[in-house]
Amino acid sequence: MTSTASITAGLLVIGDEILSGRTRDVNIGATAEFCTDLGIELREVRVVSDETDEIVEAVNALRARYTYIFTTGGIGPTHDDITADAIAKAFGVALPINAQARAMLETRWKERGIEVNEARLRMARIPEGADLIVNSVSAAPGFRIGNVHVMAGVPLIMRAMLEAIAPTLQTGKKVLSVTVKAAVGEGTVGGPLGELQLQYPDVKMGSYPQMGVNKVMTELVLRSSDEALLHEAAGKVREMVAAAHKKAGIAPPDGN
Amino acid sequence: MTSTASITAGLLVIGDEILSGRTRDVNIGATAEFCTDLGIELREVRVVSDETDEIVEAVNALRARYTYIFTTGGIGPTHDDITADAIAKAFGVALPINAQARAMLETRWKERGIEVNEARLRMARIPEGADLIVNSVSAAPGFRIGNVHVMAGVPLIMRAMLEAIAPTLQTGKKVLSVTVKAAVGEGTVGGPLGELQLQYPDVKMGSYPQMGVNKVMTELVLRSSDEALLHEAAGKVREMVAAAHKKAGIAPPDGN
Repeated sequence: MTSTASITAGLLVIGDEILSGRTRDVNIGATAEFCTDLGIELREVRVVSDETDEIVEAVNALRARYTYIFTTGGIGPTHDDITADAIAKAFGVALPINAQARAMLETRWKERGIEVNEARLRMARIPEGADLIVNSVSAAPGFRIGNVHVMAGVPLIMRAMLEAIAPTLQTGKKVLSVTVKAAVGEGTVGGPLGELQLQYPDVKMGSYPQMGVNKVMTELVLRSSDEALLHEAAGKVREMVAAAHKKAGIAPPDGN
Repeated sequence: MTSTASITAGLLVIGDEILSGRTRDVNIGATAEFCTDLGIELREVRVVSDETDEIVEAVNALRARYTYIFTTGGIGPTHDDITADAIAKAFGVALPINAQARAMLETRWKERGIEVNEARLRMARIPEGADLIVNSVSAAPGFRIGNVHVMAGVPLIMRAMLEAIAPTLQTGKKVLSVTVKAAVGEGTVGGPLGELQLQYPDVKMGSYPQMGVNKVMTELVLRSSDEALLHEAAGKVREMVAAAHKKAGIAPPDGN
């Protein structure tokens, strides 16, 4: 599916281990890239602890605001895996054992000689009315209910689930970007860049200082879904940067 | 300063570059470790775009809820650096050029032969009533207003600013952790771990599956500020894991 309207998303990362610093999150970056590649605008990320009320509040705030919500974490078999419970509560629906999920899990367990127990069956509990997100790595499915996509926290499984849902998502007009490198500091290009931003309101211009990396000191990143306008604005930014280099008496960096 | 009460924190990461996937955030993990080391409980993280209203809303939501708020990003000299504006708006105060900040910046610029211009002077705009956060790396200060600490997005500077504010923060009772490694899956230990969690409500037990890492398959992490209770609970978890290994006929992993 494609659309020209703006498609937006919010990401909810669930897990004490991220907030304690024990685990370094990599799902934010992966989801951000996934969204950008599909022309979906990731507008907000929240990280909350393994507390039902925190998850319910965040899910309800985000799902009212964006086209899609992605969650990651808390769908395993242990007592601290409470995401399914929280999502069912947020939607006001029951959380029964799902026959399809149970069958998928039992098939995998049988193959591997793993016993069925109550903890493992927690992973087959799916909110009423949800569709399963089946993935190639783990037999434990995620699920979609309304605009909320509930996925695993283990990065490998999370990425497989994102791939699984990609064909079902509406995609927006892809945002293109051009980077112009400057061998002068942000403070030098800041004024003229601000003026160019006013001239090109539909091209979002960002400035990112680099610390001690070769002689490039600032990267100016232009983003727009209008390719012609983007290249016109990038030409103006390049001229501005060239003038700043000339004034400072320095050679421009490679790659412009 | 120290206190036995629970000291909490929220982190607000500001920047389109994180949400687009262009830049991988490292400040969340660094802030999480910083908080844990000080006995401050990081309860929530939000990532928002470079939009004034988004920043104002998130800052106001977080500062009402937690002891401390940390923000990172958006305090440089370019038009997309709007954090100071947003914080001034959130607190309903003016944003004048701060004489101390200006003097610090001008001293650095003079040393390096950098001209003073309007873009650079943006970095001296500090909300009325705020204290500066001076750091060892950059001459551009962060600032503290109320319980909100506004810091740079560049990780090296962010870390220097965290070090600078550390002595000013109230710290809680440090949370200690013990990790017990199991050579069986989460589904095997999930049931008994849940029962132990009920027996030890003041020891938070988490279970983290490992994918294909040697023969350790699950890490059980116990966290508590009560050291004696933590070790008592850890002993019970070790016994439970040993029983699971015995039942499965496998040798326990190293490190328990």
